[in-house]
Amino acid sequence: MGDSGCEKQAAAAEQLFVKSFSRLPGAGEYPTRDDVALELLIATPSGNHMMNNTPTCSCVNDIARSFTRFVSEGHQESELYQTSLMSALIDGVYEGDMTIEELLTHGDFGLGTFDELDGELVAFDSEVHQLREDGSARKARPDQKTPFAVVTHFRPTMFGELTSPRTRKDIEAVIDELIGSHNVFCAFRINGRFERVETRTVQRQFPPYRPMLQAIEHQPVFKFPQTSGTLVGFRCPEYVQGINVAGFHVHYITDDRKGGGHVLDYTLLAGKVEVARISCLRIDLPNTEHFERATLCSDDMASAIEAAEG
Amino acid sequence: MGDSGCEKQAAAAEQLFVKSFSRLPGAGEYPTRDDVALELLIATPSGNHMMNNTPTCSCVNDIARSFTRFVSEGHQESELYQTSLMSALIDGVYEGDMTIEELLTHGDFGLGTFDELDGELVAFDSEVHQLREDGSARKARPDQKTPFAVVTHFRPTMFGELTSPRTRKDIEAVIDELIGSHNVFCAFRINGRFERVETRTVQRQFPPYRPMLQAIEHQPVFKFPQTSGTLVGFRCPEYVQGINVAGFHVHYITDDRKGGGHVLDYTLLAGKVEVARISCLRIDLPNTEHFERATLCSDDMASAIEAAEG
Repeated sequence: MGDSGCEKQAAAAEQLFVKSFSRLPGAGEYPTRDDVALELLIATPSGNHMMNNTPTCSCVNDIARSFTRFVSEGHQESELYQTSLMSALIDGVYEGDMTIEELLTHGDFGLGTFDELDGELVAFDSEVHQLREDGSARKARPDQKTPFAVVTHFRPTMFGELTSPRTRKDIEAVIDELIGSHNVFCAFRINGRFERVETRTVQRQFPPYRPMLQAIEHQPVFKFPQTSGTLVGFRCPEYVQGINVAGFHVHYITDDRKGGGHVLDYTLLAGKVEVARISCLRIDLPNTEHFERATLCSDDMASAIEAAEG
Repeated sequence: MGDSGCEKQAAAAEQLFVKSFSRLPGAGEYPTRDDVALELLIATPSGNHMMNNTPTCSCVNDIARSFTRFVSEGHQESELYQTSLMSALIDGVYEGDMTIEELLTHGDFGLGTFDELDGELVAFDSEVHQLREDGSARKARPDQKTPFAVVTHFRPTMFGELTSPRTRKDIEAVIDELIGSHNVFCAFRINGRFERVETRTVQRQFPPYRPMLQAIEHQPVFKFPQTSGTLVGFRCPEYVQGINVAGFHVHYITDDRKGGGHVLDYTLLAGKVEVARISCLRIDLPNTEHFERATLCSDDMASAIEAAEG
């Protein structure tokens, strides 16, 4: 447990948080750093990111946990909604029965792909972007369809400003600590400046469809040095491997909306991290013959998904 | 494919079905045998259960499939709702955060267990029954809690009267045929006379809780010869093993509401079978520390669930 100084800091931060949450926030309506001076969540012994005018300590994990508990008790969580299954995509079910317009009724934030595996889908603030294999990016049309997508009405319950470089592993460790349990889901968004983001983008397929591991054998990899942009991510428990992607699954788009993709790795220079804990999953299965016939269980599903999404 | 005689029968049955479904039925509002003479779904070469005054043929599977397709296009499906995970129950998470009253808002039909593993839960027509280890049965109170339950707003889309003895395996094969794909869910209800039903009932546990395989080592098994009652069942795809129970999962209660339990085997003498195809699953995770700490993935989860629920 933390020492008494840390406990006081946690209590002070929580009081500020309670105050700022006197009404429950909707999407985009949470208190910002300026409102409540919550420049914390990730503090380092050498930094001073705890709270304004308070010394930093090494027990930030205790503080993060106190936020998680508070928020989970008083905040209306969104559900994680997904159309189809990751395993169906792995098996080559590249045509869905859900339009982007309908998808947006289930969430304003998320990721996935498009029919025919035609690029990566990244959504936030109710805008859906399509990042294609040739490196082009465009807004998705409402009538486009998706064979697999995961969305939520993003209501972040934890947030913080990071002002020193953090690797993907750093960020993931902090999110793990904030959520506190590997048995629940989370969604997170990072708006910031990135030293580098490495992505890949699936290639459009044509019938007869090959299974995904064959389809992505020669997928293009993009490197984005020194860009500003938005990361959209989920963390799913191990027990949904195959249904979804166990662990972290992240897509990226640059602020100029010209590049991005499925994220392989990144280093954040500075930016805002927002995290929402989620404990409700809704799965809608496509009403298509291809889905009904698909092979959705196999001994090597975990390694196939690791190869496809890792 | 079926011969022309069978195709005509299928078409005739479907016409009757279309007619009877001129308005979509709510729970309990579907056409009965008397309305549309649908004494079919399971026909045998030696029987005459096809339709009134029509000869039986061996291609009942074709007919079953035609019903499935018709219904799935024109009927509003319910979702399968579950609180917590089967794997959490296996790990000894025997206290939930959901009351029976709240559970009933998510469905009027289903099965599960009660806090402290205090007996089997069977629900239909919005009534929830508790079948305890001592063989007693009672209506559940609204304020009782469940650590794991699966419910749906039961809207059957296929139904039939069976008038000759059928084993559990017979019934399961017919349901498989009716649903047509192992990748979707289904709920089913059988009201009938049973030659025999064999059940078991979990024993109430006390903290500190043992994992389920230890808790059920000496669970009582009951044999019900020649009873009338209600079977409440689900069939889940293989890919949700651990999250739910893959395959068939069935609970039983006698018409006198004095006996029943988790069904191990049965033989139906005669009765009505109602089946609903389901392609939406919603999972609500309990907001409890015990759930958050639970071990929900293990190499032998499938065999553990088979031992606990098989």
